[in-house]
This record gives sequence, structure tokens and C-alpha cells, in this order.
Amino acid sequence: MAVIERNIERTDLPLIVIPNGVPTLEGPFLHEIERLDGMARVRMFTGETDLNDHGLFIKRSQGADAVVVLGFHVTDDIFDAISGTVKCMAFGGTGIANYVNIPRANEMGIRLCNVRHYGDQSVAEHALALMFELAKRTGRMDVRMHDEGGWEGFDAIQLCGKTVGIVGFGGIGSTTARMCTGLGMDVIEWSHRSHADEAAAMGVREVPTLERLFDEADIVSLHLALNPQTEGIIDSALLDRLSPGNAFINTARSQLVAPGALLRRLEQGDVAAGLDVFDTEPLPDDDPLRSLPNVVLTPHNAWRTDGASRGIARQVVDSLIAWIKGEDYNVVS
Amino acid sequence: MAVIERNIERTDLPLIVIPNGVPTLEGPFLHEIERLDGMARVRMFTGETDLNDHGLFIKRSQGADAVVVLGFHVTDDIFDAISGTVKCMAFGGTGIANYVNIPRANEMGIRLCNVRHYGDQSVAEHALALMFELAKRTGRMDVRMHDEGGWEGFDAIQLCGKTVGIVGFGGIGSTTARMCTGLGMDVIEWSHRSHADEAAAMGVREVPTLERLFDEADIVSLHLALNPQTEGIIDSALLDRLSPGNAFINTARSQLVAPGALLRRLEQGDVAAGLDVFDTEPLPDDDPLRSLPNVVLTPHNAWRTDGASRGIARQVVDSLIAWIKGEDYNVVS
Repeated sequence: MAVIERNIERTDLPLIVIPNGVPTLEGPFLHEIERLDGMARVRMFTGETDLNDHGLFIKRSQGADAVVVLGFHVTDDIFDAISGTVKCMAFGGTGIANYVNIPRANEMGIRLCNVRHYGDQSVAEHALALMFELAKRTGRMDVRMHDEGGWEGFDAIQLCGKTVGIVGFGGIGSTTARMCTGLGMDVIEWSHRSHADEAAAMGVREVPTLERLFDEADIVSLHLALNPQTEGIIDSALLDRLSPGNAFINTARSQLVAPGALLRRLEQGDVAAGLDVFDTEPLPDDDPLRSLPNVVLTPHNAWRTDGASRGIARQVVDSLIAWIKGEDYNVVS
Repeated sequence: MAVIERNIERTDLPLIVIPNGVPTLEGPFLHEIERLDGMARVRMFTGETDLNDHGLFIKRSQGADAVVVLGFHVTDDIFDAISGTVKCMAFGGTGIANYVNIPRANEMGIRLCNVRHYGDQSVAEHALALMFELAKRTGRMDVRMHDEGGWEGFDAIQLCGKTVGIVGFGGIGSTTARMCTGLGMDVIEWSHRSHADEAAAMGVREVPTLERLFDEADIVSLHLALNPQTEGIIDSALLDRLSPGNAFINTARSQLVAPGALLRRLEQGDVAAGLDVFDTEPLPDDDPLRSLPNVVLTPHNAWRTDGASRGIARQVVDSLIAWIKGEDYNVVS
């Protein structure tokens, strides 16, 4: 553990506390907090922290005017302790509701901020990484060449000319689509709300139904948000529309697929999948997906990049600067 | 072994023989030879063949007006046996000189054709596949999740925003460059002959020297042809310009790098490499590259895709159609 302080002597300025260290975020935050010079005092703790040690969070946040919330839950006892001074909480993620009691913060006049779309590029790139590994088995050949020796190749698939179907055309879906067009792939998209013009502008064709998308695509990549409208939307009937040799990529949420439907389809062995998300995470060691040769599995890792970390740090600091200046940026409530 | 014949009763038409089967090419050739209907008789042999069985090639090529050469050497005895009837040899690769005695074919008035740039897209995609595996370790995480269980992630690198330096701006280099711009990477290129306008048109910046390219790039990808001017062009002085965290990709030829220079640089451990080509192929099991954690290795597999196979079959048949019509296509001499 270490503590880094900037401008701490300027007691005329508000105090911002980052009460816990997250290894991948330390570098980006060290860089970004320089922008707070002349506007705020900053006290930043580094090194791994027990996220359940409420007392530690309370102690470290003493006297703070703003607190940066990185992965710990703001429990009632923490709230009680810091509510006297804290006027802003900046959350280093999107879904703040799971970490902060929003109604209580509202009651107490605490501004809540989050960060948005910071992982769009990373997740889109991970969808492509899964596509590449399914098509080329580069990583698998590498492991074999390192661990087993030999010179065993693979009949790879050329991505250029294949049709990829993007389900959901928000930040991540449209970023994935744009990159796929750059690879020379034919790209089609479907989402609940039409994006036909935006899609056409980047050379992407909108199809009218999810069924058509599954019929036409060689590779389907899922980029929907999870909500009551989308939960289980990918059902067995849709998955049955995949043809032999087709592939299904999920970097979004496992619950978008009807329970058991994907495993049943994959066990037929004629289609492949690249999966970063699972019904239970971490994926149990005895999960049947782990023994299927036709799936590429990664441990919910898509968001975990240097670029996403920089985006979190940048937006958190932007939201703090806006708060200091009385402006609006990423304000949740 | 099987033999497939088309229009074989039409003895008024020239006879084209494909005397050996190559598993990945059979499907594409079966599809493409349909285009010869009404123009030629075709006799196509399938199944693996001993490439040293001259007698078999002689026997199968009996009476052929044209022969398709897929990976076997047209030795003197084969030449002697078929030279009475054969007027065209269509080679299913680019470097025909290693397989066919060109002066002798010229003397005998035999047209020689090859296929060109059929692997550009595949090799460019493989360069990206190596880049993705170095940046994301998707394949390595997958193998671990399949073989060892667990849920161990990786601090991945976002490719968007990184600078890639393309060395050599021919078919493969420019294809790789175009795809990298599609990923949102900054792309610079250098080659012996300036391509500044062509590069600028696709948003790529030409740099004046190879040194500058190594200084500015986060990832260097090699796409030069091997010739006396380029052999050993990537020397230790250039490789020393790579900064910690940088990566070097070689899908071209190992001999473009000065002997031993890459291994020495990689053994310092601060830069990474993705390599599909090696000084000795197959790569010996005790090669020190196999024990370096900072390299991704594939067994000269970049060209091996469905798309490249289709390109070979398509161009071979195009060259045969041109020969029949007295037109020029992919004629070497």
C-alpha cells in the first residue's frame, strides 16, 4: 500500500479520495489526476485492498468531499460515516445501482456519476479476437508449438468475404460492425430500433428480422444490452438456423440466450462458438462447455484492456472536474 | 483415390489433366472445372499422392494437352514423357521456377502459367491474427480454460489507437494496412519504392526511412519479398529501436531478418513477436524460440485458408480458359 497526495496543503480546495487501488487503473489514474491540480486536493491509495473491509474505506474517506468508487460496495455503514462531508461519488463503471444506494444518495444531495462506453472498443476488439481464433486457431497452434513441439497446422478460414451478422447496433455493436467492414467482411445488422441510415453510411445492411440475420450470416455476434425485452431472445429456433460451419460469438451477456439452448446446439458439433460470458461466472470447472472442441472460451476478459482503463480514469476525472465547476458530465442523479 | 471426368467423350476438345489430389484444393477445383464445360475435357485425380512417384504422374498425364501442376516437380523424365502432347502447364502457385524447368518448356513451346496474389488476403489476415493473439491472448486463455480449468484472465492491449508500421507495401502489405486502419489503428508504411499517394488514399502515412518506422511504430509487420536487396534488411540496429512493449510480426520470410538478430532481441524479454516463418522449417523441436514466453508461433500456416485455395483453383482455371481461347492470363512464358 502507498498513498499518493497532490496539492494536499491547499485546504481551500475540495478533497477527492480514491480509497482503494486497482492494479490496472493505478497508472491511468496517476496520469489523469494531474488535471485536477489547482482545482482539488487528491489522496489516492494504491495496492490491493480487501473490498469487504468497510472500516478501511471509512477511515480512508475521512473528510473527503468526493469519493471515487472502484469496485467496492458503498454499504450503509460507509454511507453513515461519510455522508457528513461527501457531496459527490464518482463510480468507475457503468452500472452504479449495484454498488451505491441511489435513492439514499439522492436524499442526501450527493451527486452520483458513472462512466460510459469506456469498454466499447475493447469489447468489440474481443469479439474480433474470438472470431480470429475460431477462424485461424493461431493461439492454439502457438500453445502447441510451445508446449508439445511439432509443426501441426490448421485449415484456416478467410474472414474477408464472409458475412457477419451484428445483433444490436449500440456502441459496441456498431464499433464491431465498422471493424468487420474494414476486414472486407459483408456486414448485416439487426436491432430493436432501426439504425438503417447509420448502418448504410458505414456499408452495413440492416435486415428486418433476427431470423433473417441468422439465415444470412456465417458468423453471428451478439451485442445487445440485457433487459426484460432481450433476456432469452436467442432461442433454440434461432440457433437452429445456423448452418454447418457457422459461428456464434457472445461478448455481451449469457442470459441473452435461452437457458441451455446454446449448449444443445453446440453439442451437435457442426457449428462453433466464441464465448466470453457464461450463466455462472467464474465458469465451473466441470461445465460441459469446457470439453467441447468447437468453442473458444475466455474468462469474461473483453473489457480488460489498457484502453478501457484509460477511459475509466479519464471519465472519472472529467466527472469530478464537471462537479467542481458546477457543470454536468456523466451525472446519474 | 478417385478419378473425376467431365465431358470426356468430347474427343474434339483438348484434354486437361489434374494428376494429383491436394485435400484442401479438391473442393475448389471441383467447383471451378465446371467452367470448362464445352471448352475442354477434364480428368481430375483425387486423394493423396506420393509426390515422388514420377511413373504415376507420367501415366496419369498420358495424352494430356494441358497439365495442372500442384506441388510436384516436373522432372526430366516427366517432361520427356508428356512433351509430345502437352502444350500448357498451369502451376498452382507463384514460384513456378522451382517446379518446372522454364527454359526447357520455352524451347518446346509449352505455355507456362502461375497464380498470383491468391494468398494476399490470407497472409494479411494471419498478420492480424498474430497481432490479436499477442494483444489479447485469446487462444491461450481458451486452451487454459479447456485443459486446466480455472478462470485466469489477461491484461489485454487495445489495438485501436496503437501505431502499426507496415514494411513493404505490395499486395500483402497494403491489404494488411487497409485492415489495420479499419481497426482504428494509426498506420505508417515504408517500402523501397514510394507509395505515398496510394497510402494516403487509404489513410496511411509513408515514413522516409525504415529507422523512422521502427521508432514510431508500436507494432512492426513485415511484408517484403525476399531478394538480394532485402535479405537481412532487418538487423540488430533496427530491432534495438523497438521500445519495451512493442511487437514485431513476420509472416513474410525469416531471411529478411539478419541471422540471430531477432532471437537476441527477444531474449531481452521486453518486446514481443508473432512469427509464422523461420530459418529452418519445420522449426526444430529444440529451437530456443519455442521456449520464449514473449513470442506467438505458428507453423507457416498463413497461406492455408479456404479463400486462398479458392483463389488458386479460380486462377488456374482462368489461365486454362485463356490458353484455350488464345488469350493472355497469368502467362509466365
